[in-house]
Amino acid sequence: MTKLEMTELVLAAKFARQASWADISAAAGMSDVFVVSACLGQNALPAEAAAKVAAFLGLGNRTKDVEIALQLPPKKAQEAETVSKDPLIYRFFEITYVYGDTIKELIHEEFGDGIMSAIDFDLKIEREENPKGDRVKITMCGKFLPYNQW
Amino acid sequence: MTKLEMTELVLAAKFARQASWADISAAAGMSDVFVVSACLGQNALPAEAAAKVAAFLGLGNRTKDVEIALQLPPKKAQEAETVSKDPLIYRFFEITYVYGDTIKELIHEEFGDGIMSAIDFDLKIEREENPKGDRVKITMCGKFLPYNQW
Amino acid sequence: MTKLEMTELVLAAKFARQASWADISAAAGMSDVFVVSACLGQNALPAEAAAKVAAFLGLGNRTKDVEIALQLPPKKAQEAETVSKDPLIYRFFEITYVYGDTIKELIHEEFGDGIMSAIDFDLKIEREENPKGDRVKITMCGKFLPYNQW
Amino acid sequence: MTKLEMTELVLAAKFARQASWADISAAAGMSDVFVVSACLGQNALPAEAAAKVAAFLGLGNRTKDVEIALQLPPKKAQEAETVSKDPLIYRFFEITYVYGDTIKELIHEEFGDGIMSAIDFDLKIEREENPKGDRVKITMCGKFLPYNQW
Amino acid sequence: MTKLEMTELVLAAKFARQASWADISAAAGMSDVFVVSACLGQNALPAEAAAKVAAFLGLGNRTKDVEIALQLPPKKAQEAETVSKDPLIYRFFEITYVYGDTIKELIHEEFGDGIMSAIDFDLKIEREENPKGDRVKITMCGKFLPYNQW
Amino acid sequence: MTKLEMTELVLAAKFARQASWADISAAAGMSDVFVVSACLGQNALPAEAAAKVAAFLGLGNRTKDVEIALQLPPKKAQEAETVSKDPLIYRFFEITYVYGDTIKELIHEEFGDGIMSAIDFDLKIEREENPKGDRVKITMCGKFLPYNQW
Amino acid sequence: MTKLEMTELVLAAKFARQASWADISAAAGMSDVFVVSACLGQNALPAEAAAKVAAFLGLGNRTKDVEIALQLPPKKAQEAETVSKDPLIYRFFEITYVYGDTIKELIHEEFGDGIMSAIDFDLKIEREENPKGDRVKITMCGKFLPYNQW
Amino acid sequence: MTKLEMTELVLAAKFARQASWADISAAAGMSDVFVVSACLGQNALPAEAAAKVAAFLGLGNRTKDVEIALQLPPKKAQEAETVSKDPLIYRFFEITYVYGDTIKELIHEEFGDGIMSAIDFDLKIEREENPKGDRVKITMCGKFLPYNQW
Amino acid sequence: MTKLEMTELVLAAKFARQASWADISAAAGMSDVFVVSACLGQNALPAEAAAKVAAFLGLGNRTKDVEIALQLPPKKAQEAETVSKDPLIYRFFEITYVYGDTIKELIHEEFGDGIMSAIDFDLKIEREENPKGDRVKITMCGKFLPYNQW
Amino acid sequence: MTKLEMTELVLAAKFARQASWADISAAAGMSDVFVVSACLGQNALPAEAAAKVAAFLGLGNRTKDVEIALQLPPKKAQEAETVSKDPLIYRFFEITYVYGDTIKELIHEEFGDGIMSAIDFDLKIEREENPKGDRVKITMCGKFLPYNQW
Repeated sequence: MTKLEMTELVLAAKFARQASWADISAAAGMSDVFVVSACLGQNALPAEAAAKVAAFLGLGNRTKDVEIALQLPPKKAQEAETVSKDPLIYRFFEITYVYGDTIKELIHEEFGDGIMSAIDFDLKIEREENPKGDRVKITMCGKFLPYNQW
Repeated sequence: MTKLEMTELVLAAKFARQASWADISAAAGMSDVFVVSACLGQNALPAEAAAKVAAFLGLGNRTKDVEIALQLPPKKAQEAETVSKDPLIYRFFEITYVYGDTIKELIHEEFGDGIMSAIDFDLKIEREENPKGDRVKITMCGKFLPYNQW
Repeated sequence: MTKLEMTELVLAAKFARQASWADISAAAGMSDVFVVSACLGQNALPAEAAAKVAAFLGLGNRTKDVEIALQLPPKKAQEAETVSKDPLIYRFFEITYVYGDTIKELIHEEFGDGIMSAIDFDLKIEREENPKGDRVKITMCGKFLPYNQW
Repeated sequence: MTKLEMTELVLAAKFARQASWADISAAAGMSDVFVVSACLGQNALPAEAAAKVAAFLGLGNRTKDVEIALQLPPKKAQEAETVSKDPLIYRFFEITYVYGDTIKELIHEEFGDGIMSAIDFDLKIEREENPKGDRVKITMCGKFLPYNQW
Repeated sequence: MTKLEMTELVLAAKFARQASWADISAAAGMSDVFVVSACLGQNALPAEAAAKVAAFLGLGNRTKDVEIALQLPPKKAQEAETVSKDPLIYRFFEITYVYGDTIKELIHEEFGDGIMSAIDFDLKIEREENPKGDRVKITMCGKFLPYNQW
Repeated sequence: MTKLEMTELVLAAKFARQASWADISAAAGMSDVFVVSACLGQNALPAEAAAKVAAFLGLGNRTKDVEIALQLPPKKAQEAETVSKDPLIYRFFEITYVYGDTIKELIHEEFGDGIMSAIDFDLKIEREENPKGDRVKITMCGKFLPYNQW
Repeated sequence: MTKLEMTELVLAAKFARQASWADISAAAGMSDVFVVSACLGQNALPAEAAAKVAAFLGLGNRTKDVEIALQLPPKKAQEAETVSKDPLIYRFFEITYVYGDTIKELIHEEFGDGIMSAIDFDLKIEREENPKGDRVKITMCGKFLPYNQW
Repeated sequence: MTKLEMTELVLAAKFARQASWADISAAAGMSDVFVVSACLGQNALPAEAAAKVAAFLGLGNRTKDVEIALQLPPKKAQEAETVSKDPLIYRFFEITYVYGDTIKELIHEEFGDGIMSAIDFDLKIEREENPKGDRVKITMCGKFLPYNQW
Repeated sequence: MTKLEMTELVLAAKFARQASWADISAAAGMSDVFVVSACLGQNALPAEAAAKVAAFLGLGNRTKDVEIALQLPPKKAQEAETVSKDPLIYRFFEITYVYGDTIKELIHEEFGDGIMSAIDFDLKIEREENPKGDRVKITMCGKFLPYNQW
Repeated sequence: MTKLEMTELVLAAKFARQASWADISAAAGMSDVFVVSACLGQNALPAEAAAKVAAFLGLGNRTKDVEIALQLPPKKAQEAETVSKDPLIYRFFEITYVYGDTIKELIHEEFGDGIMSAIDFDLKIEREENPKGDRVKITMCGKFLPYNQW
């Protein structure tokens, strides 16, 4: 079973059961961002969470295959566009275009030469209530990796 | 005075005075991310902050020109690469490639059809201490904009 | 049901019934531009309009699925070319190439640093009668969003 | 004198005189969009308007050259990016990505096979006051050109 | 019936009947270039010519559908490559690369600022006999459209 | 002297003398398209025509160098964009996108497998008077080259 | 029968009969390069050679269709990548990158302004024995086409 | 001295002395293709040939620098376009597009899995006289490199 | 049987038998990197190893076909992206971006003008134990190929 | 002083002193790869090594500036091409194209989901003597970073 087939089965079962990502993440016992990314084929779930997700979705005789597929290391971002045209996703390109050099200046000033890891990394999405209109709050947190010198 | 000349003068003065971005932001009385982005020609400072930054940097007879240039609406991201090859900046493209669809699913589940604004938006960079190696914490916060229906 | 399947069903039913977009929009009780964009999978209809469109088209046992699909937040512009080669659509790229900087200068002169929203936005297409040949009149109207300063 | 040099001289004189585009357009006696586009090297002014703009800007011994340069047919869009990264300009690409097929459907339904001319064309930018935040209103109007059949 | 299906049916019938494009154009009573472009899904035939082409090709129970499809405004150039690698087609890109600026200079010298329309336009292909080897003669003729000034 | 310098000198002299391309071509005794393309660095003039053009333009002590430069085989299309954004030039890309396959079908039907040469080739631009608005008529004529079989 | 189907049938029959390209070319009575290029859908065989190839391959009831398909003028290079990543094919891009300007200088020095035809052209591949390791010898031979002057 | 400056000096001296590439290659005592490629900064001359070329060109006080520069390993193809628009050079891309897979099939049939080296490689350009028009003959010869198996 | 079908069969059998690449390579009696690359369709196995791999995987009546397919020279890198977005693979692009010029300087200093062969080449992947976290060690070893001089 | 100016000064001094990279690395007391990459503006030297390099090169009154510039975190890979056309550098792209998926399979089999770091990373270049021709041996070693799960 490919990751693509896995994702299609998960989305179909989610739709059929009218389950939310919040429900599925709760079943997995892990964060929503990580569980969704795994269901979309971008991350690998640990065995226990994979079993819980597959069981929760009620996939019949495909349950075991989905459970295994959820645990495999994926080839990531295979379907991602170089620059997405979807307005929601494009805004993250725009933020990088406008603030990329600023972020670079400030990380180097604070930490020296190195980067924020995108591997030893987590991401959180929250609603921030605001009388002028609620806001989306996204927190990215990655280990600082200093450049090796040898 | 173009934004490019302005940025060169600011960087040269910053170097000559051994000033940090923290110093310059403190002089401006605004957040470091916003002040740095303005100094790099990606945002427009309000008049008061522009005057403070220009004065702080000690730019001699160019002070007034820089003060004005800092307030003009910039043509943003003129120098940005479509996909940056700098490892620190590239990681933000990678995060969008790997987590873009996940973020989209979760914002729509929580808010419905719409986007996180990148204009009514702020961004914060912090050090998160961690015994296994300190972490970079980046918080993005933008107003949720629902799609108009008419 | 994916948005793509939904669009195919809508177009087939429209063809079979010889319905115009004007008919479908009238059935929906919303503007033609918005209804067409939703039928093409680029916007999400409110529940009531979705029900009316699906009912109007007479889709048999697919009616309910199309009704639901019309309400889901779409991944927009998935099929759009970076630069379309269709002459009608290309002209909008050309207008942006020729008049983009002009529009930018004039919006900034009038409103300061910020943008016209493409989300809190509407668009109208009209025939303007003219003895030398009728004209197409397109009106775009979006909320001015000033850049946040923090 | 190239169009590029012409534009630089115009912008420098505009800045030195603290003139607005509204002032310059008034001096020219033509619409602001057309005059700005000509000053940015994207259109050719008629002789009379060119003379008025050059005179108004007070360009000393370059006045005549600018007056001539403003009248020449330009090589248009030479500096335009295939897809601009500036957020204000990008939104027009986004509108085309999201609404391009919708516009095509509706123009064909109303007019048959053909296009909206981008040559026999005008464009207007207005402020639309709104208690929830003023809006930018852009009106494009171009002759409908039916495809020739032979 | 999509334009793609229509084209496939036309080509299959043309092959089965061993008809030439000259035959089909004669049946349509219009020029070969226009009729071929319509059969390839790049233009829309008037009703009468569409009926004649469909009848001539002998398409059985698909005749009516093809007749209708031939009349619809197409999404043009969907399959065209940005730069074709086919040698015959590439030569037209090469001619534009080598002679594009020359054509621009001479049209502007003769007509002023404006373009040759590619919509109010016709194209003719002829054999020119020549003892050193026959030549292909292509004549393009489009209305001159002067840039609007407003 | 590079071709670029040559072109700049020619254009400056043309401007200073208020000479038209028609004047320069007449002086050269060759067609306007060929002479302009040579002046723009896209073709090589025969010695006699090169001498006449250089003499006609009155280039002082650069006359000889321009005369030589006009005769050198150029690296063609160095400055040409892959797809030009200038509306006049773009239309030729559009014509190729819309009519390329049609032209291919008809040349093969008439001549067999082969191409129209863009080397053993000439091009003519004419005004065609028309009460509904004059038309630009472009005639391309190139030797048919059959594919070698060996 | 499309050229693609033709190529698939030829390759399958070649595999089934364990025939080499040398065998097929010998049956055709033409050079291996030309015959292979025709079998891959890049050239058109003369009728006699097409009949011999189709007969030799033993294609059963598809023989006639393949025989016809082999004679049609192909749309060439439809499947070719702009720059191939296959190491064997890439080396020809590399040779053009490294030696392209050199070849241009030497052809112009020897022949004047013009090109080597890729249409009136043949190509040969040979093994050159060499004690330090055999070498591949490729000979390209095309008619010199001088640029037309008019 | 960069390779670029070296090439400019060589071309200027070649022009001033009216020397041909044949003259310069004869002075170097090596093949014209290799010497020209080295003069254009694409290969490194052995010391003796570099000294002869520099001396032959009569470069005054830059002689020694050019002699050294001619011997340095170049960064090759820095100025080469991904796909050249110059007609002479483009034909080599076209040949690769049309015949690339054919060459691959025949080299593998003759030699097995591997490539023709573009490093242990030479290239020759000759005039082939022909009553129907002389031909350009290009011979490429590179060591066959079999893929390592380990 | 295409290389793609071969790879699918191998991966399915590997999955069904829960075999590791280490198992398959051991069966082949060759290095893991080479055997995996052949199973993924990027290299050709010698006959003996191909037979062992096919037999080991237990492919039933497809065994012989897979055995043959494993030995054919592949069209390499057909599926590879120009720049992969998968984080593991991207890092090798990043290493080339950051260290490419450095590697070039040092190979030329040590060996003169030439390259490291990617054909007469082998690659090894090892785990390097390390108390601060194990490391991936990749060794590439290719014959130095000096540029031919002729 | 920008990194670019720094690199130019270092290369000029290296040339003037006829110093090798081995000499400069020895002076720095660090590995040649790291020191060269820092001199080329791709890494930041520690203070002590920067002082030694600057002193060794004998840069006169620019010594201090170069010493500082060598320590700054660079914007990496600014000048790198997306895919280099230089044959030596291109081979690393080719290796990634041909072996990228193989490396991915084997790292995941050995380590699970994660990547080889290109930051906590070192690289070594060695000559491997071989009677059939010496070989270039490149060793890359980076920390394995497992994907975070949260």
